Amino acid sequence: MSTTRPERTLREQWRNGDTTIGGWLAIPSTVLAETTARAGFDYVCVDTQHGAIEYSDAVGLIQAILLGGSTPIVRVPWNEPGVIGKMLDAGALGVIVPMVNTVAQAEAVVQAARYAPAGARSYGPTVVGMRRTDYVDWAADNIAVIPMIETGEALENLDDILAVDGIDAIYVGPADLSLSLGLAPGNNDDEPVFAQAYTAIVEACRRAGVVAGCHATGALAPRRTAAGFRMVTATTDLVAARIGLKSELDRARGGVGPDGDDAIY
Amino acid sequence: MSTTRPERTLREQWRNGDTTIGGWLAIPSTVLAETTARAGFDYVCVDTQHGAIEYSDAVGLIQAILLGGSTPIVRVPWNEPGVIGKMLDAGALGVIVPMVNTVAQAEAVVQAARYAPAGARSYGPTVVGMRRTDYVDWAADNIAVIPMIETGEALENLDDILAVDGIDAIYVGPADLSLSLGLAPGNNDDEPVFAQAYTAIVEACRRAGVVAGCHATGALAPRRTAAGFRMVTATTDLVAARIGLKSELDRARGGVGPDGDDAIY
Amino acid sequence: MSTTRPERTLREQWRNGDTTIGGWLAIPSTVLAETTARAGFDYVCVDTQHGAIEYSDAVGLIQAILLGGSTPIVRVPWNEPGVIGKMLDAGALGVIVPMVNTVAQAEAVVQAARYAPAGARSYGPTVVGMRRTDYVDWAADNIAVIPMIETGEALENLDDILAVDGIDAIYVGPADLSLSLGLAPGNNDDEPVFAQAYTAIVEACRRAGVVAGCHATGALAPRRTAAGFRMVTATTDLVAARIGLKSELDRARGGVGPDGDDAIY
Amino acid sequence: MSTTRPERTLREQWRNGDTTIGGWLAIPSTVLAETTARAGFDYVCVDTQHGAIEYSDAVGLIQAILLGGSTPIVRVPWNEPGVIGKMLDAGALGVIVPMVNTVAQAEAVVQAARYAPAGARSYGPTVVGMRRTDYVDWAADNIAVIPMIETGEALENLDDILAVDGIDAIYVGPADLSLSLGLAPGNNDDEPVFAQAYTAIVEACRRAGVVAGCHATGALAPRRTAAGFRMVTATTDLVAARIGLKSELDRARGGVGPDGDDAIY
Amino acid sequence: MSTTRPERTLREQWRNGDTTIGGWLAIPSTVLAETTARAGFDYVCVDTQHGAIEYSDAVGLIQAILLGGSTPIVRVPWNEPGVIGKMLDAGALGVIVPMVNTVAQAEAVVQAARYAPAGARSYGPTVVGMRRTDYVDWAADNIAVIPMIETGEALENLDDILAVDGIDAIYVGPADLSLSLGLAPGNNDDEPVFAQAYTAIVEACRRAGVVAGCHATGALAPRRTAAGFRMVTATTDLVAARIGLKSELDRARGGVGPDGDDAIY
Amino acid sequence: MSTTRPERTLREQWRNGDTTIGGWLAIPSTVLAETTARAGFDYVCVDTQHGAIEYSDAVGLIQAILLGGSTPIVRVPWNEPGVIGKMLDAGALGVIVPMVNTVAQAEAVVQAARYAPAGARSYGPTVVGMRRTDYVDWAADNIAVIPMIETGEALENLDDILAVDGIDAIYVGPADLSLSLGLAPGNNDDEPVFAQAYTAIVEACRRAGVVAGCHATGALAPRRTAAGFRMVTATTDLVAARIGLKSELDRARGGVGPDGDDAIY
Repeated sequence: MSTTRPERTLREQWRNGDTTIGGWLAIPSTVLAETTARAGFDYVCVDTQHGAIEYSDAVGLIQAILLGGSTPIVRVPWNEPGVIGKMLDAGALGVIVPMVNTVAQAEAVVQAARYAPAGARSYGPTVVGMRRTDYVDWAADNIAVIPMIETGEALENLDDILAVDGIDAIYVGPADLSLSLGLAPGNNDDEPVFAQAYTAIVEACRRAGVVAGCHATGALAPRRTAAGFRMVTATTDLVAARIGLKSELDRARGGVGPDGDDAIY
Repeated sequence: MSTTRPERTLREQWRNGDTTIGGWLAIPSTVLAETTARAGFDYVCVDTQHGAIEYSDAVGLIQAILLGGSTPIVRVPWNEPGVIGKMLDAGALGVIVPMVNTVAQAEAVVQAARYAPAGARSYGPTVVGMRRTDYVDWAADNIAVIPMIETGEALENLDDILAVDGIDAIYVGPADLSLSLGLAPGNNDDEPVFAQAYTAIVEACRRAGVVAGCHATGALAPRRTAAGFRMVTATTDLVAARIGLKSELDRARGGVGPDGDDAIY
Repeated sequence: MSTTRPERTLREQWRNGDTTIGGWLAIPSTVLAETTARAGFDYVCVDTQHGAIEYSDAVGLIQAILLGGSTPIVRVPWNEPGVIGKMLDAGALGVIVPMVNTVAQAEAVVQAARYAPAGARSYGPTVVGMRRTDYVDWAADNIAVIPMIETGEALENLDDILAVDGIDAIYVGPADLSLSLGLAPGNNDDEPVFAQAYTAIVEACRRAGVVAGCHATGALAPRRTAAGFRMVTATTDLVAARIGLKSELDRARGGVGPDGDDAIY
Repeated sequence: MSTTRPERTLREQWRNGDTTIGGWLAIPSTVLAETTARAGFDYVCVDTQHGAIEYSDAVGLIQAILLGGSTPIVRVPWNEPGVIGKMLDAGALGVIVPMVNTVAQAEAVVQAARYAPAGARSYGPTVVGMRRTDYVDWAADNIAVIPMIETGEALENLDDILAVDGIDAIYVGPADLSLSLGLAPGNNDDEPVFAQAYTAIVEACRRAGVVAGCHATGALAPRRTAAGFRMVTATTDLVAARIGLKSELDRARGGVGPDGDDAIY
Repeated sequence: MSTTRPERTLREQWRNGDTTIGGWLAIPSTVLAETTARAGFDYVCVDTQHGAIEYSDAVGLIQAILLGGSTPIVRVPWNEPGVIGKMLDAGALGVIVPMVNTVAQAEAVVQAARYAPAGARSYGPTVVGMRRTDYVDWAADNIAVIPMIETGEALENLDDILAVDGIDAIYVGPADLSLSLGLAPGNNDDEPVFAQAYTAIVEACRRAGVVAGCHATGALAPRRTAAGFRMVTATTDLVAARIGLKSELDRARGGVGPDGDDAIY
Repeated sequence: MSTTRPERTLREQWRNGDTTIGGWLAIPSTVLAETTARAGFDYVCVDTQHGAIEYSDAVGLIQAILLGGSTPIVRVPWNEPGVIGKMLDAGALGVIVPMVNTVAQAEAVVQAARYAPAGARSYGPTVVGMRRTDYVDWAADNIAVIPMIETGEALENLDDILAVDGIDAIYVGPADLSLSLGLAPGNNDDEPVFAQAYTAIVEACRRAGVVAGCHATGALAPRRTAAGFRMVTATTDLVAARIGLKSELDRARGGVGPDGDDAIY
């Protein structure tokens, strides 16, 4: 029924200079996906790497995100052309690819995600093709190709990776980056090596004209956007559910007292 | 895989005088179900009436709730013996049955949910039977039979319904009760006809030795338990996710400014 | 992602005097459902009676039909309040109910499909409620309640059935009607008893101000609309696939010759 | 019930000199799969590259194709030994592997699809093994190994690829071949570079004793078989459904008139 | 792919005087279903009452049973026309209906399972219809209608139930019959009331010309067939798996010694 | 609900010197999985290589195995980091990786399965993380990394493979090993080349302090444990079901006589 937000892809928004805030799906429920989309995120990412989701779920989740008025993108499990192609055919309007540490890996992402001559994506837009007749040309301007920068090795190769033709944005995974840098997984802003990496990434992206993106939280997102990240994921369906379950249960238990003993009763 | 909460059924808890706080599932995800159970609810109800869930989902959801250390119960779509039997065979340790307005309907619930001679439940505990060898006897003492009281007609017949042998608790649906009373669907505590109905239900349950239960929210739950309800549902997976999605997005947008324009950037 | 057709429910179209042409789903594929919707049908019916589809499929199929820009309705397996409520909660904007032969059965349909005071539908629009905030009021004006007229008994009770408050349309099943009249299942326009029944149905609907609907084919549809039917189903996904598979295979075999022997080769 | 077509694998048919016409599945429906098989295609290919299908669907689709009396084959998403093995274990009697551009890639296909000593397929015919006790020996003579030739690079390496021991047929993807040759995706018979490639492929296959296959349409199939292709896919379930949906809706609208205005009514 | 057993329905076998031995499915796996069918049972019953199976599973299970060369039948959850029709449409060649205790209930079974004029089954053989073009006539001679006799009330009404036109066989559920007779659920041959009931059932069936069927075990089956039962279920997929799991684990542990301590090692 | 076996991971058991006996899943049924776990196996392996199972099934199967009181591990389809990570995130407590023939392949397994600095597993324990808060540290001590040794090439490289840091056990696939050695697939203990390979593997494992594991049967398991294998799989769900189906059908047919003719009747 009503979808008030005008249809825009991430690349359209980035061309307009927008900073985009995203939701994230770890659960294969088309109802929860539509709910997440309707919450008002600029994009909703179907996570088939660390989420409990795989390809056959993604087809319907992408439909639900579109119906909910947001932009569907997908994180693939690994840098493999088969699954990148399947997700784009299913209607993902962007693809996040984990663990891109070298120029060769970045070039492989572009090869898998772009049609010739820019790449070598196999043609067969079975699902997405029914949504527009000009898909091949439109894809060249709208499909977002987003490798992840999440290791020390990637940091070393960053400028070269960003120079690979066909990359629209990069996406930082703070937990893997932390592990790679010898820290506990998480957002380690207090650790200089982590903070410096984030600064270096934003600066390199600015120089290269590539959008900087990262995984964050609702609380962290303003800090990230202030630092120059223009693609910031604020939460996931599962994290959001945990937040809500805990707060509602805490409120409910508040009147019950310890050990289920209700003093008022 | 620690499960610190000792295993207890609702009827065990009620026999101990406990007030029980519940979670509710509208989404068919075994990951979200285990998450909800681990949040610490006394019971988690698989809602196959208004939730986007059906029997084949329920089998795995019940497994996930048990693994998460909570007590699985099911709300069936309607007062039909086939589906009541299927859910109990799948391992539901209680069954909430909607729209029980007459003594005959209440008796039908008991017939479907209890083995002879107490009822006429068909024998075939295919799934649940592997979890204990004494299931038939154990079921007589532990399966919770819970008709819903949610219409004016049910209120009129309340004492007679509560007198039907084999009913352990009743469960009030505030939205349907409100509609039936000519109010908007919701918790209409400010409306005397609604508030009086709630009071009457608790008092009738006390007289009959039947547990009073109701659908609530985290905020309302202390009021309900204070009023004498001993089975109170605080939230659902979907409501909880909406709460978390909204709060996280609001926090994220807080630093972005109106219309995606980031003044700080 | 373009949806050029303005959003309209069947009841809106009928109020405008439109004749509506429908598609029908027998296969639980959200891709095929979106394809069917995008083909341009005014409504697409998810058939959970004779289609190979059940509730858990319907949730996603309804999303796909909405995304494809058509109006989703559902045929339930039988006149049971549980499943009627589940399908409406899932977002069906109309419900076709088979084998409604008596006034009591017609009243039961209305009770299951409309909220109090018009009926007794249980409140819990878990899925559909996220699509609009005014659902209860909107539903009263937009949910189409459509019993099937498909037996001799129903024909005898037709005027009384049509007089039941809350019925928007009736839907004729030609195969069951034929069987009930002693004919082979199908569209038996050449049989006077069948043709007279169709005429009688349209006339009775006109008198009662109820829309006449029926199951047809692409070839038959113009005849039905000319006769006064304003809700006419033209084909199903499975029938359409058979038509296409046969025609394409015939064309392919055309050059191959009999028995796989290719004379041209 | 009745399966009149004698059981034959593609390799049996090719040994007999037959030209084989195929159907193609993009939708994971076992009902549609059986329907496609019963339409009379020599083979039905489960497309897990560009179809909306994955492994868990394929198991049942292969059963349905066998029940329908046709020969099930699978197109895998990419040239990976894991998925090739899984599909053969599930009962695929042939495997189409996309984007085989070099001898090394062709050898990898054979390694994944044939048991030692011809290859290195891992043993574990969990599903297919129950259908015959002599599976290992039978597979050597009946499993069809079919790399795709669909790039300029593959054309350059064609004779060497065809010389790889263990390849039974090759399959041309006209859309990817066109993209690789700088054309729009499709059957570009009017473009000399495309037409010459098709001719070269058939001739190279003849020289090498390998069957030439290609993706076509019902209308194009006679032209392809006349040119020497002996494995020609005529249509897909989804294309066929679109053909049927459009033709039936057009026929239905024929009597309704433009804009839903029915002049006859 | 060989299916050596000639295709026969239960009614064909019964007309030939055969005693039929059946398998039973409690698990929704098409691989296990085909395995069960290939084991050599005359029929395989998809149990949607006490099995962990529902309609959407049944469609594929029936295909798998047919592929495996056995006769698929279904036990529905309850005596409801909607689900009986859905299962027959999906290709069940017989339907077992639980808890038929009265003539009216037996007549309802026939109404739901047979087309007019014998009954009132709704026409729409979406799946099964593709397997034969003469389905309506063929169904009259081949669909087996099998109410369950499993209560004392049913025993009292047995002759009248057996006299209902359109019933081909009855099926005894020993567990429910035992519960109804005041015994523990099971095969209570040593209890006179149980043994007499079995004898009475066989004799009543003989008088009425109706096949007597019952649920048994491999060990009990010879006793039941000797007593005159001509439709005897020997085991289920889940029971069979438990037997095999236990025996293989016992054999494996045999060499390991108690408590995981390996004396031989 | 009772789980009497104390919770232990394979590595805990191996540290205690235990020999572990396992079950194996080829069927994606959470009911059968829980049944297998409750049968008493030390571990239950979800086979996504040769079993009819994939990732989305594995999430629920792991929950069911945990609920049943056994240790869930997964065999992945191939040595790919994406799927190894997904299975560990889903809660697999060990991972069996097929066809590890070289040191480089063994190192890749460790990289995919262990967090930095021991490896490069990507962080995101979406499912498993809710079961313990100390997952990263705990994983280092408890996740079992188990490459398969199943070719002649692997035998040649065995000592070097076993020396790769981070490998806890190896697992022998007798069928692939046999094929690779020029034998028919199976347990070829009578063939010296096979028997010598088994002896060599156990000895090499002892030298390296790595647990030797292998696929066996109930009958073979004592021989394998006696030979020094400390991780021995005794059977699979599907094999067990076949054993049970055959034995029960044989017993049932025993009293029926040949050709369905019952001499006793």
